[in-house]
Parts: sequence; C-alpha cells; structure tokens
Amino acid sequence: MGAPAAPRQLHLNAFVHGCGHHGAAWRLPGSPVAEMGDIRYYERLAQTAEQGLFDAVFFADGQCAGDPVSGPLWHLEPLTMLAAIARATARIGLVCTVSSTFYEPFHAARMLASLDHISGGRMGVNVVTSMFDAEARNHGMPALPPHAQRYARAAEFIEAARGLWNSWDDGAILADRSGRYADPAGIRPVHHEGAHFSVAGPLNVPRSPQGSPVLFQAGASEPGRELAAKYAEGIYAVAYDLPSAQAYYSDVKARVVKAGRDPDEVAIMPGLVTYVAATEREARAKQAEADAALPVETSLAQLGRFVQRDCSGWDLDAPVPELVPASNFMGPAGRYATILRIVESERPTVRQLLGRLAAGGGHATMVGTPEQVADEMQRWLDHGGADGFNLMPPLLPDSLKDFVELVVPVLQRRGLFRTKYRGRTLREHLAQGRGEVRRAA
Amino acid sequence: MGAPAAPRQLHLNAFVHGCGHHGAAWRLPGSPVAEMGDIRYYERLAQTAEQGLFDAVFFADGQCAGDPVSGPLWHLEPLTMLAAIARATARIGLVCTVSSTFYEPFHAARMLASLDHISGGRMGVNVVTSMFDAEARNHGMPALPPHAQRYARAAEFIEAARGLWNSWDDGAILADRSGRYADPAGIRPVHHEGAHFSVAGPLNVPRSPQGSPVLFQAGASEPGRELAAKYAEGIYAVAYDLPSAQAYYSDVKARVVKAGRDPDEVAIMPGLVTYVAATEREARAKQAEADAALPVETSLAQLGRFVQRDCSGWDLDAPVPELVPASNFMGPAGRYATILRIVESERPTVRQLLGRLAAGGGHATMVGTPEQVADEMQRWLDHGGADGFNLMPPLLPDSLKDFVELVVPVLQRRGLFRTKYRGRTLREHLAQGRGEVRRAA
Repeated sequence: MGAPAAPRQLHLNAFVHGCGHHGAAWRLPGSPVAEMGDIRYYERLAQTAEQGLFDAVFFADGQCAGDPVSGPLWHLEPLTMLAAIARATARIGLVCTVSSTFYEPFHAARMLASLDHISGGRMGVNVVTSMFDAEARNHGMPALPPHAQRYARAAEFIEAARGLWNSWDDGAILADRSGRYADPAGIRPVHHEGAHFSVAGPLNVPRSPQGSPVLFQAGASEPGRELAAKYAEGIYAVAYDLPSAQAYYSDVKARVVKAGRDPDEVAIMPGLVTYVAATEREARAKQAEADAALPVETSLAQLGRFVQRDCSGWDLDAPVPELVPASNFMGPAGRYATILRIVESERPTVRQLLGRLAAGGGHATMVGTPEQVADEMQRWLDHGGADGFNLMPPLLPDSLKDFVELVVPVLQRRGLFRTKYRGRTLREHLAQGRGEVRRAA
Repeated sequence: MGAPAAPRQLHLNAFVHGCGHHGAAWRLPGSPVAEMGDIRYYERLAQTAEQGLFDAVFFADGQCAGDPVSGPLWHLEPLTMLAAIARATARIGLVCTVSSTFYEPFHAARMLASLDHISGGRMGVNVVTSMFDAEARNHGMPALPPHAQRYARAAEFIEAARGLWNSWDDGAILADRSGRYADPAGIRPVHHEGAHFSVAGPLNVPRSPQGSPVLFQAGASEPGRELAAKYAEGIYAVAYDLPSAQAYYSDVKARVVKAGRDPDEVAIMPGLVTYVAATEREARAKQAEADAALPVETSLAQLGRFVQRDCSGWDLDAPVPELVPASNFMGPAGRYATILRIVESERPTVRQLLGRLAAGGGHATMVGTPEQVADEMQRWLDHGGADGFNLMPPLLPDSLKDFVELVVPVLQRRGLFRTKYRGRTLREHLAQGRGEVRRAA
C-alpha cells in the first residue's frame, strides 16, 4: 500500500508575556525586568521562536493598567509592537489580541490588514471580549457589558471586519499609468448595519497577502465555544490535564462539524508551561526556584481574580474552601473550570493550589527532560487532546530558548514537527503537516 | 560685544505621501507605483530624510478609501507603518496623523506612547478633525459632526490624552526584585469626564521617553488656529506665497502669546513643493513633465473637492467663475483661502489655476537651482513667514533625494540648517537652532 502516511504534526505558538508567565519571573536574578519597554527584547524573543520554526508568536492584550505592584503587566501596545517584530523576522506568524468590546471594526480591520502587508502575510488576530470593568472605564463605559452582549458584539465585529477585508479584490489595483489606478468594480462598499456597528466601507487598505488575518479565539464559555466553532482557524485553550483537554477538544471539534466546517481546519492549542533540562531533577529545581520567589499575597490576589472573591484570608494549609459550581460563576470560564478541575482531582490545600497556578494560572505544565516533555506532548496529540500547543514560557527568555534548543529537535526527530517552513504565510504554516491525520494509538 | 548670534535655523519635515504630492506622480515612467504596499519603500524614504537631517518624517491619514481611480491614496495604515519605520531609522522624528473625531483617547494615547517607547522618544502626533462624510460612515456616524463640535472634541481629546500620558511618573517603575514592581503613588487615575469622553485611566503604558509625543496641528480655520495656539508645538500650514504666509504666521504667533505661551515654542511650517535641478530650466522641465501627465478631469475633480462644488463643466480657458467668500465656505478653510488668494492675485484661467494646484493643491512651490530655492526659503524665514517647512516632494523618491542632496548643503553652508542631530528626541530636534532668534533683514 506504499509508504506509511506521514505523522500528523504539532503546531506551536510562542505566547510572549513580560518576563515570562510565572508570577515571579521578573523577581529572579538575571530576569529581563529592565527591558520591558525595549522593543529589541520582544524582537529577540520572536527571533528565537522563529529559529524554533514556531507557527507564530502571540501577544495577549488588556485595556487597563491592572495591578502594577506585583509585576510588569503591559508596557508596549501589541499592534505597534508587532509591526516592529514583523520587520525583525521573516517567516514566523504574528498573532495580536484585539478586543471586540473596545475596538471598532474599521480601525482594527485596517491596522490588521496593514500589518498583513507589512509582514508579507503573517498576521493573525485573537479576538477577545475582555474581562475587567476597569477596561470598560477607559473606554467610556461604566462597566463591562454583559457576557452575552459582548459575544454578540464579537460575532458582529468579525462579520464587519471580514466584509472590510473582502472589500478589495486581488486584481483591483491596475496601476495603469495612462489610465486608472484601480478598477472601481473590484472595490465594494460593505454596507454593514448591525446592532453594534454601522460601517459603510470599503476599507482604505487594498487586499492584503493573506486576504484576511488568521482568526484565533480563546473563549471557553458556551458562547465562546460557539464563536470559535463558527469562525476560528486556531483556538488557544486552557487544559490542566489530558482528560480536560480531551473533553474540550471533542466538544469544540463537534461544534465545528455542526457549524458545517472541516474540523481539521481548526487547530486547537492548549496553553503549555514547560520547564526543561538535561535531567528531570534540574528541571524541577528550576520550577521550584521560581515558585519559591513568588510572594504568597501575590498568589492569593491572583487566585482572587480567577475565582472573583477575596481569598486574602484563606488558611494556606487548609483544604481549598468550597467554590460555586461553574454554572453559577459569572467570570471567565476557562480558568475557573481549571481551578475546579484541580480541586476536584487533587483535593489540594490552598498552598498546593497556589503552586499549581504559579505559572500561567493552571495551564498544562510539563516538567522534565526533553524526551519526557516530548512524550507528554505526543500523548496529547495522539489522544485527541491537542493539535498543538500555545507555549507559555514561565521564564523568558530562558524557557523559550530551552524549548527551542532541547525539545524541538526531539519532536523533529520523531516527525512530529516541521524541519523547515514550507509556506510563507501564517495560514500556510497552520495547514502544514495537517493533511495526513495520524490515528490515535 | 562677543561673537554675532548664530542665525536662527530652519525646521524641516518630510511629508511622505504615495508616489509624491503631484497628482500625476504615479503616472510618470519609473514611478514607485508598484511599491505602495511595500513597507521597505517608506522605510527608505524615511532614511533619505534622516540622511538630510530632517526634524521628522510625517504621514497624513484618512478614514475612507476616497477616489481610488485617479491615483493611490492610502495603502498602509500610519501607526503600524511608523512602528516599522522607527526600527529602520535612528534619529529622525516620526509624526503620525490621528483623527480626534474617530479615535478614542485611550487607544490613540496608548499607541502613541508605545511608539514613543519603540522609537526612543521620536514620536509626534498631528491631531486632525477629519473632512469627509465618507469617513464618518466607516465609524458609525451618518455624516461628519459639525465643525465646531469636531473642534470641541479635538480639544477634549488632547486633554484626555495628556492626562493619560501624565498618569505614570518617571520613577514609578521600581523593579525591586524582592518588593514592588511599581510604586502605586507614581501612577494616577485620570478621571476624565467630559462632553465627548469618559476615561478613568491610568494608561497601561508607563511614561515614554518624551513624556508625551510632540503635538502638531494643521487647521487654518478660526477654531483650528485657536486649538493650535493653545496646544500645538508644531504647525503645518498652507501658504501660497509669502504675504499669505506672513498673515497666517503673525496671526497664529499672536494667538500663542495670548494663550500665555512662548511663540518660539511653536514652529510654524508651511507646506513646500520643490523642483530642484542644476539649472532653473531643468527644474522647470521636471515640473512641466509632471503637469503634462495629469488628466484634466482628475484636476477638475480635485478642484471640486477643494471648493466643494461640481467643476466638471468649467471652461478651461475662461477665467475662474466667482467663488463664495471664505466666510460663507463650510469646508476646510486653509486650502480654500489659498485658492481665493491665487484667483485674487493672479486672475488665472481655470487651466492656469489647475496648474497651480497640481502638486500639493496650492502649497508654496519653489522651482529652480539649489541656491534659488534656498534663497526663497531664507526669505520666508527672515521675513516672518515660516520657522521651517513641511516639504511635500511632488515626485517620490526623486524630489526628496534632490532636496537632500542639493538644497540641504546650501542651507547648511549658510548656517540655516543643522549639520548634525544634537538631540535624540523629536522635541530636542525642534528646540535645536531656536535659541538665538535672527532679526528680520
């Protein structure tokens, strides 16, 4: 029957944030804490991820200053930052978070199309609906609109942006020196009139190399999953362990099918925190060093944000107090479900729970040798838990470098990751290695 | 009495637009018309201006596609473009146009602060109130708000943005590894509550190298002049000839004084179109070649936009039909005043008027040898017409290169222009050569 089918390959995003995703990353000796406002720091991280042949580098975003005491949160703004990074890299995809609650479609669609031109077709956009009332108060609203309304606006935002991205045909620019610069028949108004937006169009940016940026989504709530099933080409998920990853994966892939789309066209990438070293002991020591540097009040305050109650008085060595069921929780669903999962599966003390959340707040954490981490990643790929991972390096730049230098070669030897970029655009990277689907073992 | 005072020096901005400011620039053989979406084209132009030691490179902006048939208008979006250009240059200032009618202060202040970090303190912002109903229809409004309302919003926009730029003290970031990342006493809410915006603050970008970007303004109307007098550090003006430049200059400087500010702190820079060559004849031939390439229907359509009436049936060889007085004109005032000035001072035919407007639409045009152009620039500087110029190269990249290679050395020899950048920030460039004011001859 000919050669065996090539194994399905992983997709890898590098999620760059501050000094790393560990809450104490900036506190460690040698941390890049002085470089938070230096664009060269972020350029170098993107170059490291590109050396590792990652599909994309990804930036989250928020619209308020947050708590500036416990660590660096925001400094540079991601759309402007990614324009610079586009020019410091050549092949890696560039994914920017944009809030549909606070952005208008015309501004966002225009800047993303411009970035797709500047990067030669490497842009992606992670559409979020935002989380904090403090963000709303920076944008003329007294508080965040209700969850359902935010998701309705997100869907309309995507529709309006898509209309704008499609308002110029590929051949609309004629550049006929003795005639017309563009053919008006290839440029169409959008006439979007919805509950949240009114946008006439056309866009004032001609069609970009990818036509439209690759659409990512990250919501775990019911309307978040529906939005992802309908629109997303890539999904950033939260999964603490393989069973919860599998549950999310099968649910969302079924929704994608129900929405009339090919499930292979949507890459599900859970967040992944890794500590890698030549020996498991060394890797665990790295993790322990970071955990030990995190002040307990900072961890309790973070937990308080995740569960939306005051945890400052909780007894660290007692079991975690009872939490309201997910169905009664009004905040962001993915992180909360993870905390319930940890409590239910491990019955931890408060101190133990804080340890689990120290880096990345409850995303999958893999600690060990390159082979051990590759084994576990492969297990998630082969058992319907993931199409790839959104790497959340706990300590930057070291955790990213370690992954690129130590884990990527192992994945490549196993045929689980590309050995070169075949395409030039982010959409091509996401299609690479997706054709021949590997069967679960 | 010691050495004579150094002469006052000119300020120079390079206003980059498409293939150049001449309406037929893209039609000429060898024009960069195929590079309108290529960031490297704009990077190279900024590098050329930086070789010429210009204070800044400047981009206009618009929020609608306009007329895409008669030439390239927009392609890349300026905020994203300037992030890339910041990384391709080292010293030149970078001025972005932002519409206060369509932007919210939080988004704009944040991106500009981020760009000020990315560029190491080289950002400026030209706040405009926008001109076309088609722009409003891309942003949820059926038409442009009335002129007075747009200017009231612009003033409030600047106040709110300033509040956000000042919401972090210079020393707010402590980065104390065993303590606090930032000192909350150095980070303040803004509590802006106005007729147009409600912004809580603080910004989520720490204080940028310049504290705030340098503020430019370009309106010639009564409220435009008032806004400029109150806030602007640089003004882009429209002046067809020295008498109209002097009238504008003395009026605005008097308003600056009345607003309690030092008139030397506000640099007035009229737009300037130049054709330069070794001989005047060659320079005039360049201009004639461009003018001859411009279809008369395109010129009439442009004139129609400037005077806001249908000019398509006007007899080209008859005198210009009577125009309503400036006081009855509802559109943008600067360009209209220029057209009235040309008609009144030269009594041209329609065809002659179109010739005057072909490049830049009625800005000062200087054609000749490097010495002739430098003479004329010096005359404006010495006779209270300008503190510098906003160079509008009619044909890119050639007119900019010609100016840098041919005119800049003449200005330098006369002591009228810097021979090196003394400062690192745009605000320092604008202060350079401003201390010792040269007396009018």
